[in-house]
Amino acid sequence: MIIRHPENPLISPCDVKPSRPDFEVVCTFNAGVTRYKDEVILLLRVAEIPKNDNPAIERVPIFSSEQNELIVRDFDRTDKSIDYSDSRFVRTAEQQFLTSISHLRLARSKDGIHFSIDEKPAMFPANVYEEYGIEDARITKIDDTYYINYCGTADVGITTLLASTTDFETFERHGVIFAPDNKDVEIFPEKINGKYYALHRPTSAEYKHRSIWMAESPDLMCWGNHRNFLTTREGFWDDGRVGGSAVPFRIEEGWLEIYHGADKNNRYCLGALLLDADEPWKILGRSEKPIMKPEADYEVNGFFGNIVFNNGVLFEDGIIKIYYGAADTHIAYAEISLEEVLAGLK
Amino acid sequence: MIIRHPENPLISPCDVKPSRPDFEVVCTFNAGVTRYKDEVILLLRVAEIPKNDNPAIERVPIFSSEQNELIVRDFDRTDKSIDYSDSRFVRTAEQQFLTSISHLRLARSKDGIHFSIDEKPAMFPANVYEEYGIEDARITKIDDTYYINYCGTADVGITTLLASTTDFETFERHGVIFAPDNKDVEIFPEKINGKYYALHRPTSAEYKHRSIWMAESPDLMCWGNHRNFLTTREGFWDDGRVGGSAVPFRIEEGWLEIYHGADKNNRYCLGALLLDADEPWKILGRSEKPIMKPEADYEVNGFFGNIVFNNGVLFEDGIIKIYYGAADTHIAYAEISLEEVLAGLK
Repeated sequence: MIIRHPENPLISPCDVKPSRPDFEVVCTFNAGVTRYKDEVILLLRVAEIPKNDNPAIERVPIFSSEQNELIVRDFDRTDKSIDYSDSRFVRTAEQQFLTSISHLRLARSKDGIHFSIDEKPAMFPANVYEEYGIEDARITKIDDTYYINYCGTADVGITTLLASTTDFETFERHGVIFAPDNKDVEIFPEKINGKYYALHRPTSAEYKHRSIWMAESPDLMCWGNHRNFLTTREGFWDDGRVGGSAVPFRIEEGWLEIYHGADKNNRYCLGALLLDADEPWKILGRSEKPIMKPEADYEVNGFFGNIVFNNGVLFEDGIIKIYYGAADTHIAYAEISLEEVLAGLK
Repeated sequence: MIIRHPENPLISPCDVKPSRPDFEVVCTFNAGVTRYKDEVILLLRVAEIPKNDNPAIERVPIFSSEQNELIVRDFDRTDKSIDYSDSRFVRTAEQQFLTSISHLRLARSKDGIHFSIDEKPAMFPANVYEEYGIEDARITKIDDTYYINYCGTADVGITTLLASTTDFETFERHGVIFAPDNKDVEIFPEKINGKYYALHRPTSAEYKHRSIWMAESPDLMCWGNHRNFLTTREGFWDDGRVGGSAVPFRIEEGWLEIYHGADKNNRYCLGALLLDADEPWKILGRSEKPIMKPEADYEVNGFFGNIVFNNGVLFEDGIIKIYYGAADTHIAYAEISLEEVLAGLK
């Protein structure tokens, strides 16, 4: 049984200081997770909007790569040529903008439950691939380096970029590792038969598919030999869309991957995959039912309700410790035993 | 001035034997080009449809990766739930199919004009990434190996795959090098400061962009450090879409790339880019006007009219020798001097 922490949600927008005084934090979710020294580290996605008390305008935050700074662009809400029907977007005839901008923020905890949250962003949009924000970090520890992949949203498309750190104080950017549109990337924490592996989720614009693919790499930077890996299942909890969630971890039986799936009503749940130890593109088991589905009030209601979404877990003492985004608004925490997850695979 | 060959078009569908007796060849176009021994080699894209004298059905050719063979699936043309509005596609509620299937066919010529065309395909769809056909080869010679990248079309999306040959008799497949959707890939013919480079054309499903990107690779198989490279130009001949065409070739001034651009009326022209010799992602010049636009009857009229499209050139004695697809139907040939192309760059 999945056990939610009684103090959930652990982190909410009101707990996070905005990156500048004229902004407000609207969502704190989808955190990369790792252990560093004696602390649990979360690299939160923090979404902000410009404060605005004028209902006639929509204020859109953009990192301008030309001006090399964050700007706020005002749009006339009475302009009938602009599409405001989805509150997350402003769509003109030429271009699509986001009404919020995300950055990555560090939170630290000794007990894994009570977090102190940095006052400043750890990573903030900084180039043409990050104009509309950086999102959904995953952290893979390899030797003494923590590799952080994250999603860049921009007019040029949705890419996955790589950064690294050894101290969670300075972060080095390494550029785009997956071309648009591609997100939900999880890099395996060690080489398998001499190669790095990653799950990724490209989108076929032409054929509409959003399958999980697997790629290999000699150096974490360049990726190829892409294999179509996992797709939706008609009539199951993941018949709408699928994507990788947590960085896979090694167990006796192979690799365990926590992934997310949505049904056709956009209810996002978590499930598991068991992958072959040596040939990780071979799927040995898949959760017949979700290991976690939105049930608690903070999962059902929020900025986007009916969502549990995960970017990383800790696996310790036979327990999968899940830090997850709830309703695209909060960070919450739950535990489930590996034994139970394995028993639910088919 | 661009000089078209008086014997154009050089190759037409009637010149190519179908791959099986119940199929007919409808298009021969978009050929990869190289010199091998004393011959010019073209790797043609040959599109075929199943013969069909029953107007009540649409016969769709598919390489079934499950059955490991080419099958023909019949669709009821009176079924109102199926979209037949674009003759290239059959669209059901769940899936999109192509009405033709392409393979790659070898043609050889001693004089570069009169080609003998193989009776059998050189490469035919053979796996799940190639279900709806393989298209638009580019050939890059590196040392004694000819690397062939080509586009795979399938329900899982549009990918670019790599193969190689040393003799143009046997072809070794190396898998998917660019995840969906991605096409128009050109691999540079030598390493630059220790890295291979390629142009590619991903599609952003979300942000609708179709820019040319540049990637680098240690091994031709894995690609990364993707850079947004070239996009459309408002008010120019390439304001609708752009993509790389020929494998770039080295000239004194840097690298020359022949690319294609379409305007908003889908008129496809060819232009040139001059790239920095050592930092090829730096664009030193771009054709203000197309170096070639559809003018001849066989370019203006055909399966898809108003198209000149190129997958490769020979650069010999200061002359760019362009083998190009005309109206998505024929292969034709034209020449232009490098001097003139350079004079038209801005």
